[in-house]
Amino acid sequence: MASHFITTKFTGGMAFNAGIGDHEVLMDASPTEGGIDSGPGPKKLMLTSLAGCTGIDVVSILNKMKVSFSDFTMDVEGFLTEEHPRIYHQVKIVYKIKLTEADRSKMEKAVGLSEDKYCGVMAMFKAFAKVETEIKYE
Amino acid sequence: MASHFITTKFTGGMAFNAGIGDHEVLMDASPTEGGIDSGPGPKKLMLTSLAGCTGIDVVSILNKMKVSFSDFTMDVEGFLTEEHPRIYHQVKIVYKIKLTEADRSKMEKAVGLSEDKYCGVMAMFKAFAKVETEIKYE
Repeated sequence: MASHFITTKFTGGMAFNAGIGDHEVLMDASPTEGGIDSGPGPKKLMLTSLAGCTGIDVVSILNKMKVSFSDFTMDVEGFLTEEHPRIYHQVKIVYKIKLTEADRSKMEKAVGLSEDKYCGVMAMFKAFAKVETEIKYE
Repeated sequence: MASHFITTKFTGGMAFNAGIGDHEVLMDASPTEGGIDSGPGPKKLMLTSLAGCTGIDVVSILNKMKVSFSDFTMDVEGFLTEEHPRIYHQVKIVYKIKLTEADRSKMEKAVGLSEDKYCGVMAMFKAFAKVETEIKYE
């Protein structure tokens, strides 16, 4: 059965250093939670994971469709429940990209395929949150 | 309504640079997916997020209970579905920690409180995966 593995080491205060293959990511709590903000908060990393997953899909699909593009960024906002444990109950992803007007329908197709078929992180988010997507052409 | 916000910029190949407050995290696909593994894969970042969230809870609770500990690490393994979109259907978290035998019950309590009450990322994971936890005393 295929699996992913990561390890995380407590480094003092509220900080943890994660080992992900050959890569390291430091996480920390914000000062209001007892940390010193020496790295991103864990919950925000979940939004980052979502952006990366759907972003890689979109680039991969646009490449396959021979679509030229530039200035591709994504903004992700996750709205938190008031009650604990605080989860993201709603997430908005805004894809911003520069491409020709003729290729806009291909961009819409790429985002749709990522949303419905390819992006595992998006599928996981949909189990607990309403996920909205929007495309803005730069 | 409280929310978290992150932004992500495509930097070429399959790589994305995320901006999370003042912090940056580079993500990339593996060579089998068309990337060059210049940063962690997005899906693995989700496991990292889970480790950081429950780890911060555990440290915070142990501190409140005045428990001394050292050598705290966590291993997280996420098992993937065969079908696309590939999601984690099962996740195992192993907490490894050094503390006195008298404090073991407090460690169990801390992990239990994180699992059931405090850790938002764990609550989100439970919406799509079976999450198992285990404590190993070093």
